[in-house]
Amino acid sequence: MIGVVRCDHTDLETTPIQAGVNRAEQAVIEVEPAFAEGLDGLAGFECAWMLTWLHQDGSDGIPPLQQVPYLLRSQRRLMGIFASRGPKRVNPIGLSLIQIVEVAGTSVTFAGVDVVDGTPVIDIKPHVTRFDRPVGDPRCGWFDKVSIDERATPARLAARS
Amino acid sequence: MIGVVRCDHTDLETTPIQAGVNRAEQAVIEVEPAFAEGLDGLAGFECAWMLTWLHQDGSDGIPPLQQVPYLLRSQRRLMGIFASRGPKRVNPIGLSLIQIVEVAGTSVTFAGVDVVDGTPVIDIKPHVTRFDRPVGDPRCGWFDKVSIDERATPARLAARS
Repeated sequence: MIGVVRCDHTDLETTPIQAGVNRAEQAVIEVEPAFAEGLDGLAGFECAWMLTWLHQDGSDGIPPLQQVPYLLRSQRRLMGIFASRGPKRVNPIGLSLIQIVEVAGTSVTFAGVDVVDGTPVIDIKPHVTRFDRPVGDPRCGWFDKVSIDERATPARLAARS
Repeated sequence: MIGVVRCDHTDLETTPIQAGVNRAEQAVIEVEPAFAEGLDGLAGFECAWMLTWLHQDGSDGIPPLQQVPYLLRSQRRLMGIFASRGPKRVNPIGLSLIQIVEVAGTSVTFAGVDVVDGTPVIDIKPHVTRFDRPVGDPRCGWFDKVSIDERATPARLAARS
């Protein structure tokens, strides 16, 4: 763990499901002082990948390998965990696309929040378009057939079903 | 660990530095049979994120927090590890954008190779454009000022310096 997320969410059910669709909300990564010098250069990037340890989702051992994703709750459709971005994973590592707002000392203010307060951060990697953007508009499986509201949370998606 | 990469690279120095710039080469993830049903639905996606445990890079404890990235070897310029995609990380987790070629049983054939043979795979997440593509063309820090050859390897980048 290199730091921890400080934000306003405390309940997974009302926390947005993906940083990339909740792009306005801001939060802070409080980086451990011992790792502060690793942040040098990060402010030059507009976006980064935040890797988190999904401590609230991953505490019960191996989860079911097929689950109903939040976005398919209304259809009650099962999907393989490796074809889903759901948080209950074999290795509970979260991948969030965040926008860097400010790097000041050990605090990284970012926009795009999809985790609860206190979530451990295990890595920050800069977003590099040449590495991270596929050519063209790739097929995105079942995601191509669902609408995604920027306020999507597990609770709201359950209410819709 | 959910599986292992089988590919032709055995030496880190001659292994491409990023999957996203070595898009032609193919390799296979051999998924543990116990996790095979988690692959259901993955074939519908053109691209995915492969999270790996960089076992050869991460075995010596905490690395220097500022390092010279492969791409800055000619300038010998130090950069914070969280502003670099280098493999020697505090938590040695690799993030590779791969293209799914075929999912057959427990074998996932993919294009885009940046790891050595035997690298443990700890997660596969589908690439979802709405989650993973920033708006517009974000600034990419020092990467915006370097050229990246699709055959870039640590050894080739050292020879250039």
